[in-house]
Amino acid sequence: MNNDVLDLTRELIARSSVTPDDAGCQPLLASRLENAGFRTEFLRRGEVDNLWAWHGSEGPVLCFLGHTDVVPPGPSDAWASDPFRPDLREGFLYGRGSADMKGSVAAFVVALEAFVAAHPEHPGTIALLLTSDEEGDAIDGVRRIAREFGEQGRAIDYCLVGEPSSLERLGDIVRVGRRGSLTGTATVRGVQGHVAYPHLADNPIHRALPAFAALAAREWDPEPYPEFPATSFQIANFQAGTGASNVIPGTASVQFNLRYSPHWTADALVAEVESLLAAHSLELSIDWHRSGEPFHTADGVLRRAVRDTLRDSLGLRPDENTGGGTSDGRFIAPMGAQVVELGPVNASIHKVDERVSVADLEALPGLYLGIAERVLLRGAE
Amino acid sequence: MNNDVLDLTRELIARSSVTPDDAGCQPLLASRLENAGFRTEFLRRGEVDNLWAWHGSEGPVLCFLGHTDVVPPGPSDAWASDPFRPDLREGFLYGRGSADMKGSVAAFVVALEAFVAAHPEHPGTIALLLTSDEEGDAIDGVRRIAREFGEQGRAIDYCLVGEPSSLERLGDIVRVGRRGSLTGTATVRGVQGHVAYPHLADNPIHRALPAFAALAAREWDPEPYPEFPATSFQIANFQAGTGASNVIPGTASVQFNLRYSPHWTADALVAEVESLLAAHSLELSIDWHRSGEPFHTADGVLRRAVRDTLRDSLGLRPDENTGGGTSDGRFIAPMGAQVVELGPVNASIHKVDERVSVADLEALPGLYLGIAERVLLRGAE
Repeated sequence: MNNDVLDLTRELIARSSVTPDDAGCQPLLASRLENAGFRTEFLRRGEVDNLWAWHGSEGPVLCFLGHTDVVPPGPSDAWASDPFRPDLREGFLYGRGSADMKGSVAAFVVALEAFVAAHPEHPGTIALLLTSDEEGDAIDGVRRIAREFGEQGRAIDYCLVGEPSSLERLGDIVRVGRRGSLTGTATVRGVQGHVAYPHLADNPIHRALPAFAALAAREWDPEPYPEFPATSFQIANFQAGTGASNVIPGTASVQFNLRYSPHWTADALVAEVESLLAAHSLELSIDWHRSGEPFHTADGVLRRAVRDTLRDSLGLRPDENTGGGTSDGRFIAPMGAQVVELGPVNASIHKVDERVSVADLEALPGLYLGIAERVLLRGAE
Repeated sequence: MNNDVLDLTRELIARSSVTPDDAGCQPLLASRLENAGFRTEFLRRGEVDNLWAWHGSEGPVLCFLGHTDVVPPGPSDAWASDPFRPDLREGFLYGRGSADMKGSVAAFVVALEAFVAAHPEHPGTIALLLTSDEEGDAIDGVRRIAREFGEQGRAIDYCLVGEPSSLERLGDIVRVGRRGSLTGTATVRGVQGHVAYPHLADNPIHRALPAFAALAAREWDPEPYPEFPATSFQIANFQAGTGASNVIPGTASVQFNLRYSPHWTADALVAEVESLLAAHSLELSIDWHRSGEPFHTADGVLRRAVRDTLRDSLGLRPDENTGGGTSDGRFIAPMGAQVVELGPVNASIHKVDERVSVADLEALPGLYLGIAERVLLRGAE
C-alpha cells in the first residue's frame, strides 16, 4: 500500500492542474476506484471538474473531501526542480500540490481501495468528493455540489478533509472548524497628474497608506475564542501606478482578506472596516467577497475516531483547533455534517519547493483507513 | 518674419519625429541657417541627432537650446486632426510638438536669421543647439554634448531654453532654474505565505505601509527656498501581490520621485530617505536614479534681458520661478551658464490635440531677437 501512494502522488503532480484545470487527475482516480467496486459520477460544472465516487447504499455517509487543483507555481526557475516534475530528494517528494493536496488525495484513494477490499459488506456509505476549484473561485466546485446535494436530499454525515493540517509532524494538529473568510477589494480614488505638479494632483497612494496601515495594525478579537486562532487582517495585493516614474496615478487598488473567529460575522466586519476607513480622508469604494462564515465541529464520533486513530497509529494526541485557511469543509458543514481536517505538514504549501515527507505520505492511507473503520464499523453502530 | 515662423513650424510638425527620431528636422533647419551664414556641426551620438550651429568666433556665447523630438501622440483617432498633419483652427496651430517645442525651434531659427541679417558684425557668438533626445532617455543628447563641450573647453555663457514655460499667456512665466529630480525604487522583502497562516509569513505590504506613510507625510524643506516650489515626495508606483487574494506576497515594490530645491542634494536625500526607512523594521534595498541636481540662475544679464524684452514687447512682467518639470537646461547650467526658459503656453503639451496659439507663435521670434540683442549688443559690453 505504501509504494502505491507515492507512485500515485507522483502521477498526480505530473499533471499540471493549475486551478481550475483538473488536467486528467479525476479520470485517473475514478478509474482506480471503479476497478475497486466504487460507482462514480463526473459532475462538471462550468469550467470545473468534480467527482463523486461512492461505495454502499445506506446511511450514514462518510465522505473524504479533497481537491485536484493547485495554485500557480510562480517562476519555475525559482524552484530547485520543475514544479510539475515530481522529484524525490532526501526523504521528501517535491512538486506543486505535493502537500496541498495531491498526497492526501492519493492516500484517500489507496485507503478507500483497502477499506472496501477488507470490508466489502460494510455498513453505511463511504465516498470521495473531489473538485478542481478549491484554490480558485470556489464557485462551481464543492459550494455548488453541496447545494445540489442538499436540494436532492443527499446527506453527508461525516466529512474528513485531507487539507494539510499538520504543523511540525503528521497529525500534530487536526482542524475541527474553520475561521470565516472575507475579502475586500478597495479602490481609492485620487487625481492623476505629473509628479512635478503635485498641487494639481491628489495621490491616492498617499491617501491609502495611513488608512491601511491602521487596519493592518488593529487587534480584532476582544479575547481569544476557544479552539480558534485570532482574527487576522492581511493585505494580499496593493496595485497602483502607471509604470512611469513621473506620473501620480489616479487610483490605487488594495485587496485584503480577513480570517475571523465566531466573534465576528461578515456583516459586522464589513461595517467595522468601512467605519475605520471612513475615519481617514479617502474617496473609495469596496467590493466585498464573502467566502464563508466560521464553523465549528463539536466533539463527537468523527473527532473521537480521528483522535483514537492518531493515538493508536502514531502515539500522539493532536491539538484540535480551527487554525489555517478556509477549505471546502465550510460548504459541507452547513449540511449538518461533522467535519474534521487531517493532512500532512503545511509548511511549504503555496510556496516554491512545495514538498511532502515520504514517511508522512506513506502513513496517511493507514490513518484514513483507521478513521473510516472507526466511523463506519464502530462509531455509527 | 511672421508667416515664416508659422510655415516653418508646420514643416517641422509634418516630420513625425517621435523621440529619439529627428525625422529630418535638423537638416532642414541647418540648411536655412547655413544660407544665413551660420556654420553647422551635426553631432550624431548613438541613435540621437544633435545640431550645433553658430555665428561669430569670440565670447561671450549665447545659445538657444531646443529639441526636435516629440512624445508619442498616443492613438491618433483620439485627436481632432492627425497629430502629424499641422492643422490651423480658430487661431491655433494643432499638432504633436506644436507647443513642445517645434514652434519655439522655428522661432529660434527665424530670430537667428534676423539677428545676423541686422547685425552681421555682432560681438560674441550666437548659437543654436538642438537634440532629438530630450523627451526620451536624455543620454546621448544635450547631456553628452555638454560634457564633450566641457572637455573641449567650449563655453556657453548664456542659454535661452525654448521650452513652453508659459501658463495662461505668452511670457507670464519664465523659468530661472529647475528643481532636482531623484527617483528611488524600493524593494521591501518579506516572507511569502498563505493569508491563513500569517504567523508563518511576513507581509512586506504591512511593513511598507507605515514607513512610506511617514515619508509621504514629511515636510522636506526647512523653509521655502527663494524662487523654488517646495520639495515634494511622490510615490508613483506601489506594486505588491501575486494577484491571488489568499497569498501574502514575498516582496513589495515602491517607486517614488523627489523634486527638490537647492536645500537638498541627491546625496543628502538618499541619506535622509534611507535613514527614515531604517527607523522602521524593514528589510529593503533601493535602486536610485539621479536625474539632475537643482540649478538656479541668479538675476543678471540674461534674466534682465528677458524681463526687459517682455516688458517692451508685451507690456508684462513675468513671474520668474523654478516650477515645472526638468529640461535640458540642467545640463548647460553646470557649464557655468546663465539659463532661462521662455516659451509658449504649456497647457496642451504631452496631451491629445496639442496646440500653440498662432499669435504667440508669431510673437516668439521678436522676443528671442530682442533677448539676443540685449545680451550680445548691450549686456555683454
